[in-house]
Amino acid sequence: MVNIPVDDSVESIEQPVDERPWEILAEKLEAEDHAGAAALLSDLSVEDQRLAMAHLAEGSQVILTSSLPPQEAAEMLEILPEAQAVSILNQLPSEAAADIVEMLPGSIGSDLLREMDEEDSDAVLAELDDPDEAEKLRTRVEYEWDTAGGLMRTRLASFSETATVGDVLADLGENAESYADMDVQYVYVTGEGEKLRGVLRLRDLVLTPRKTPVSKVMISDPVCVKASDNFSSLRTLFDEKNYIGLPVVEEDGSLIGVITRQAVREATSEHQTEDFLHTQGILGGEELRSMPMVARCGRRLAWLGPNIILNLVAASVIAMYEDTLQAVIALAVFLPIVSDMSGCSGNQAVAVSIRELTLGLIRPTEFLRIVWKEGILGIVNGFVLGLLLGTIAAVWKGNIYLGLVVGGALFLNTILSVLLGGMVPLFLKRLKVDPALASGPILTTCTDMCGFFLVLNLASAVLSKLG
Amino acid sequence: MVNIPVDDSVESIEQPVDERPWEILAEKLEAEDHAGAAALLSDLSVEDQRLAMAHLAEGSQVILTSSLPPQEAAEMLEILPEAQAVSILNQLPSEAAADIVEMLPGSIGSDLLREMDEEDSDAVLAELDDPDEAEKLRTRVEYEWDTAGGLMRTRLASFSETATVGDVLADLGENAESYADMDVQYVYVTGEGEKLRGVLRLRDLVLTPRKTPVSKVMISDPVCVKASDNFSSLRTLFDEKNYIGLPVVEEDGSLIGVITRQAVREATSEHQTEDFLHTQGILGGEELRSMPMVARCGRRLAWLGPNIILNLVAASVIAMYEDTLQAVIALAVFLPIVSDMSGCSGNQAVAVSIRELTLGLIRPTEFLRIVWKEGILGIVNGFVLGLLLGTIAAVWKGNIYLGLVVGGALFLNTILSVLLGGMVPLFLKRLKVDPALASGPILTTCTDMCGFFLVLNLASAVLSKLG
Repeated sequence: MVNIPVDDSVESIEQPVDERPWEILAEKLEAEDHAGAAALLSDLSVEDQRLAMAHLAEGSQVILTSSLPPQEAAEMLEILPEAQAVSILNQLPSEAAADIVEMLPGSIGSDLLREMDEEDSDAVLAELDDPDEAEKLRTRVEYEWDTAGGLMRTRLASFSETATVGDVLADLGENAESYADMDVQYVYVTGEGEKLRGVLRLRDLVLTPRKTPVSKVMISDPVCVKASDNFSSLRTLFDEKNYIGLPVVEEDGSLIGVITRQAVREATSEHQTEDFLHTQGILGGEELRSMPMVARCGRRLAWLGPNIILNLVAASVIAMYEDTLQAVIALAVFLPIVSDMSGCSGNQAVAVSIRELTLGLIRPTEFLRIVWKEGILGIVNGFVLGLLLGTIAAVWKGNIYLGLVVGGALFLNTILSVLLGGMVPLFLKRLKVDPALASGPILTTCTDMCGFFLVLNLASAVLSKLG
Repeated sequence: MVNIPVDDSVESIEQPVDERPWEILAEKLEAEDHAGAAALLSDLSVEDQRLAMAHLAEGSQVILTSSLPPQEAAEMLEILPEAQAVSILNQLPSEAAADIVEMLPGSIGSDLLREMDEEDSDAVLAELDDPDEAEKLRTRVEYEWDTAGGLMRTRLASFSETATVGDVLADLGENAESYADMDVQYVYVTGEGEKLRGVLRLRDLVLTPRKTPVSKVMISDPVCVKASDNFSSLRTLFDEKNYIGLPVVEEDGSLIGVITRQAVREATSEHQTEDFLHTQGILGGEELRSMPMVARCGRRLAWLGPNIILNLVAASVIAMYEDTLQAVIALAVFLPIVSDMSGCSGNQAVAVSIRELTLGLIRPTEFLRIVWKEGILGIVNGFVLGLLLGTIAAVWKGNIYLGLVVGGALFLNTILSVLLGGMVPLFLKRLKVDPALASGPILTTCTDMCGFFLVLNLASAVLSKLG
């Protein structure tokens, strides 16, 4: 049950940083010395394997993977970023991919299959030797990655309710090796049709006379989750109580897997990563620089294209006030400052809202709370920033009205930006749109438009004093 | 060892969303019915407790916490965001805070104490009843939160190397209750001066005659980490091998705690959260809307203040070209578009670099790789975006030269932005500055300056054709 490798020491992980093992690898692959390249890769530390694979072209990654024995190939795919492993599997012949998938832990295998092109993943599933295993994987692949079905592992120790404590202990002892792999924490008891009946604590097993039926010592009607339960309900459940793992059942109550606290944590972390990438304009999952250039350009343009349209909409406000701008050309210096600064203030409010939504500290309906909490902050920060920028403008051009226009516009636009920035994520959440993805562009477009409008409109109002 | 509460069902976590329990709580606190408020809070689900506390003013949070029995107060602090729990502890009298800290798991207690004002945390440590426990906490608090010492838990099952297998099993059986709390996965063997001698697998214990000395069945010289080991070396270590937990020793080899895979994962997740908040301009840890307004305004301004200076520097380029702008006022529309779009392109490159650094797919010295990988992408995306914007400009004003100026500027500035965006995080990493914190402002200032310069300088060069 506990598995402590001792053949390695902490020191061995330190490597000289100026070595570039991928260059030697690339040379060997170029010379078609696939066996040599595979041997070299196997000798590298995990850190260097990851670095080396990231530096090879995708074609070379595929050749190298297929030159490794399936077990080693599987171990290597496990340490790669998911997007990279998926891309390699997509390009391998389906028999080779199936050999590797057979060596992967079920949860990782299904994560990768789920992200593969559907045609390829079907082909791989068809090639698997063990039809039972293939069926289990197929079931899991069909669930979304962030549901209980997608996050569960399907290997577990379960016994019939007619077994005795002695039977269970004997089986655990005999198959100790294979259970060690599975990191068994609980033993499950099932009835007819694999219906979940109870959960056994290992401690209770050990301390019970061996002839006792398991049904006497098991905890009946245990807490369990449905395979379709979504991520946020799982997170709440694991937050509520100190569960290590929970059984996962299908709609009819049959036991199909186990979901662990760790799997839920990992999903949390994946959600955070996705949020981070989305706020920065990276769509469609990870982008790694080893991916093909066409895909990288296309995915970045998919975000930039709509953005340029939004930018044009915002900037068209300036075109409406060309006369004002021509009369007071100094305003041109302050237009981008007012819009950028408001954008920054708004983004801070976006981040706090996304964070509070994630932590469950605010409900998506609480717009009034945002108005109250961000409104006062916007007045204070808008005043400070407006005073600063207004003073600079007034002193620079020796014109108090220019200072009032610029400072006043930044003051008003800061208030508007923090209100909008605070509310947009709640609004998107209610619409079931990812706040991290869409908040930024919506916010920036609005704050740019309003910023340009406020500066130029206020200037028009006092145009005679600005000359 | 396995702890499965069964007194709760999945369904109980669903609550009507329009209930606002914090309003009743606030009323009770206003009426000084502290006991009633405490009783109401205890009855709420974890989700609602968190929501309710987030909606109370900090003063009320403190009063409410001190009205709860220490055990319940500790359970509540555990479910709150760390920043909120720390703030409550800071404001409680030190005896009350100490009573609560005594009820917290050691790792959480030390996390909170570490973040508290030093004076307050010292006072709390002095008030703890158990001097041994206080000493352990003090040791942990002194380590940074992302080192082995800061992430370890100090409660563990250890036995002298002179003990027999029977002694160990007897003790585990007798103290089963307290070990269940600790989630024992390994048993440790220590020699003189608490020096770590070996690790025992529970399976080996069970399958060994009871009179055997533990030193015969333990794994000698086990892998262990030093308390001062930093986060990235811990992450590599847990990535390399499938450890569940590792013993933590002091410089002299004495065993002081255990670090689990889960603790390392949680730290990863905390790092990601910090990165996310930093890229959006939230400094100094979390901001929650329940925090005092002065602190929230101040911390946001700490980021906005330097930003406005950088904005002024960038916009001063516009001031240098006022004549050009006055001659071709239509350029004013395109200045913010070129700078914003380049900023977006650059931010995408920043995100990919931060991500590749986090995943260990690139070394902070590999500037040439960035030049190669981002350079080509910049040329492609710059061309697409430049062509689009240039065409729009040319058609709008019926002037092909305007299109060439605007499109050319966006083309060149996109290339520059992705190069810079890709390299700045590597550069900051080498300087040991947080890339998530500083990349954005540095990038935006440079791309704004260059964008303004390119548009206006190209325009100056063909000024006669633009009229």
